[in-house]
Amino acid sequence: MANGNGNHVQPVPEKPESSAQDAEKAKEKAKKRQSFLTRTLWTFIMIGGFITLLLMGHAYMIVLVFVCQTLVYREVTALFSLKPKSADEQASGRDPWSKTLNWYFFAVANYYLYGESIIHYFKHVVFSDAQLTGFAMSHRFISFSLYTLGFMGFVMSLKRGYLKQQFGLFCWVHMTLMLIVVSSHFIVNNILEGMIWFWVPASLVICNDVFAYIWGITLGRTPLFKLSPKKTVEGFVGAFFSTIVFGLLWGSLFMRYQYMICPVHDLGVSAWDGVTCTPNPVFLWREWAMPKPMSVFLSTLFGKAIETIPYTKYHFHLFFLSCFASLVAPFGGFFASGFKRAFDIKDFGHSIPGHGGMTDRMDCQFLMGVFTYVYYSSLIRETHVTVGSILQLIVSGLTVNEQLELMADLKRYIEGQGISVKL
Amino acid sequence: MANGNGNHVQPVPEKPESSAQDAEKAKEKAKKRQSFLTRTLWTFIMIGGFITLLLMGHAYMIVLVFVCQTLVYREVTALFSLKPKSADEQASGRDPWSKTLNWYFFAVANYYLYGESIIHYFKHVVFSDAQLTGFAMSHRFISFSLYTLGFMGFVMSLKRGYLKQQFGLFCWVHMTLMLIVVSSHFIVNNILEGMIWFWVPASLVICNDVFAYIWGITLGRTPLFKLSPKKTVEGFVGAFFSTIVFGLLWGSLFMRYQYMICPVHDLGVSAWDGVTCTPNPVFLWREWAMPKPMSVFLSTLFGKAIETIPYTKYHFHLFFLSCFASLVAPFGGFFASGFKRAFDIKDFGHSIPGHGGMTDRMDCQFLMGVFTYVYYSSLIRETHVTVGSILQLIVSGLTVNEQLELMADLKRYIEGQGISVKL
Repeated sequence: MANGNGNHVQPVPEKPESSAQDAEKAKEKAKKRQSFLTRTLWTFIMIGGFITLLLMGHAYMIVLVFVCQTLVYREVTALFSLKPKSADEQASGRDPWSKTLNWYFFAVANYYLYGESIIHYFKHVVFSDAQLTGFAMSHRFISFSLYTLGFMGFVMSLKRGYLKQQFGLFCWVHMTLMLIVVSSHFIVNNILEGMIWFWVPASLVICNDVFAYIWGITLGRTPLFKLSPKKTVEGFVGAFFSTIVFGLLWGSLFMRYQYMICPVHDLGVSAWDGVTCTPNPVFLWREWAMPKPMSVFLSTLFGKAIETIPYTKYHFHLFFLSCFASLVAPFGGFFASGFKRAFDIKDFGHSIPGHGGMTDRMDCQFLMGVFTYVYYSSLIRETHVTVGSILQLIVSGLTVNEQLELMADLKRYIEGQGISVKL
Repeated sequence: MANGNGNHVQPVPEKPESSAQDAEKAKEKAKKRQSFLTRTLWTFIMIGGFITLLLMGHAYMIVLVFVCQTLVYREVTALFSLKPKSADEQASGRDPWSKTLNWYFFAVANYYLYGESIIHYFKHVVFSDAQLTGFAMSHRFISFSLYTLGFMGFVMSLKRGYLKQQFGLFCWVHMTLMLIVVSSHFIVNNILEGMIWFWVPASLVICNDVFAYIWGITLGRTPLFKLSPKKTVEGFVGAFFSTIVFGLLWGSLFMRYQYMICPVHDLGVSAWDGVTCTPNPVFLWREWAMPKPMSVFLSTLFGKAIETIPYTKYHFHLFFLSCFASLVAPFGGFFASGFKRAFDIKDFGHSIPGHGGMTDRMDCQFLMGVFTYVYYSSLIRETHVTVGSILQLIVSGLTVNEQLELMADLKRYIEGQGISVKL
């Protein structure tokens, strides 16, 4: 606009300036085009890789989550490095401890959290081996001791002149561990509860992102969040409805596959191994008997008798998950935007060509993953006892004599029902 | 020393200066004396109040822990307040959200953690009431939703110009919640596991503090930790041995009382109500048969036949707890010292006359409390399972095939330990 006004006053230098501008514009356009192509190419590479790993098995998916969280952790902790204040300190070199400590705490947090997941989900393996049992029983104690060693190491590395920065880094590392490593732990748990609890929520977030972009560039007028000027109210609202429709269809598609809905029992299983399990009751189809007028209306409309509508409880859960993905999860992205603005960075890194850092792609996924886990474990998970959970109780709580007594009792009970026990 | 050198060169102004110095010294001495008296008085007030609450019951002790953590939280978060950068922002006033959000997160963290404790320790109350059961089942979901609301509130309160400070405060609040509120949760759990698991470790830390001070002022020469010049190696080592002796005696004294060693079953019970329970086996007295030469030596020494030494497993645990209290817990104090130096503050607050802030008294207690909980729950806690209770679970929760699978797994486990199973 300033330029448009200027044209009337000084018409002479218009031509060369505008041709230079044109060249600049063309160059910028080519650059934008190139970056769009790179971005699109890498989007497809990511989606392809993602689906391949999904089919290869839960173990590969967990490795993927681990790789992602490691990249994010590296990007986020790299933002903060100790800088010597005076020339004197400069001579003594940077504090060599901080990087080591960062990764030490990362390792301890992962050791603790993956250990917890393994102990919880593979009870039947862990508690049928005496050595593993001993390890599992003291897992928290070992983790805490390792953490305490790190804490003592931090205190011993405190150095005058660096103090403020060191405490800042300590705080920062813990915050990152909490927001990223702990969230990833819940995402891993979702995978172990059944691939669908990871795959569908992750898709919902991506879908919401894409639709917010599409609705935003087509209808977007009203800015939504002042720290992230590209986001619009129209995009937000449009994405909300699109995500709900997408979520219902996408969930209905994947709930057909046992591979998707079965909890993990054996990590070596892929999509081609034909896993089966008794599905969680939320996946069972039910029939909803419509009110009479509605039935009459639909029957007339489709020209055949329609009296019930099939549904599963999972569809209600899909609705809530979609709502969260489009109303709350974006706040993870706003948080990251605000953060980037606060520290004046454009992207968290360059891990993915055309997409910036891994952190820029993952910001909403963490929040979504934690929500899914809490939602699933509070409202959906069947708290039925399993062979593994009972084995854990027996091994940790009974003496050998009591265990033998239990076996004899159980044998008598089973045989009492007319079933012969051969071991 | 600089003054001592100066005296030789300029002898004339010596007298008036030294008399002024004397007056100053006398004044300082009086002040020190006064502060010592205040400190001692309040030490006794605190000890007295502490013992009174201890006798009144577990509920009062939990309230005390809650009050302490609230004071510490207030002191620590008060160190960080948002300051407007420009005059323009100054006019719009301080960001009104930060204080509210601090306390909101504090409330949510406590709601979640106290809820967890109640659900875990009062199962017999919670799960015999259908309404409470429903609440307990969705407790994590409610807590997470409340936290998410706070998170969204934080993102919406982001304000250009304050961004860096707001993210700093967010990080700081989470760090404080993690170090203080979560630690307090474990201390509350210790109280619920039996008063002795709170009382003895807390005493060990105080004892170690006092002995480090006593040994330090009598023998202290070598500085231990450069950021906290009053601490000496002699104090540290002396306190180590003193704390072990104290711990063994102190623990032996309190393990005699059922009130101290029984887990809480009813919060309304005080020391005078004569609680009883089957004590944890670690408190059972055993006899150690000494090697012959030792027995002969001791019998000669005391003039009567001594062949065994009585002990309990608890004495070994006391030894380890004492070691932690004197070797590791002080790092909590070093951490606080380094922190105070980094941010140039003398004390965290003035909550306790003569003692500075509550934080200054509690720094090592948090670390000790968490250690005690992890140690207790990993190595000491009895997981009260019986053959009968497990059989009930198996019969009611597993299908016949699962029961057979369980028997095969259990057989493998027992045989894995070299015991043959014959049924």
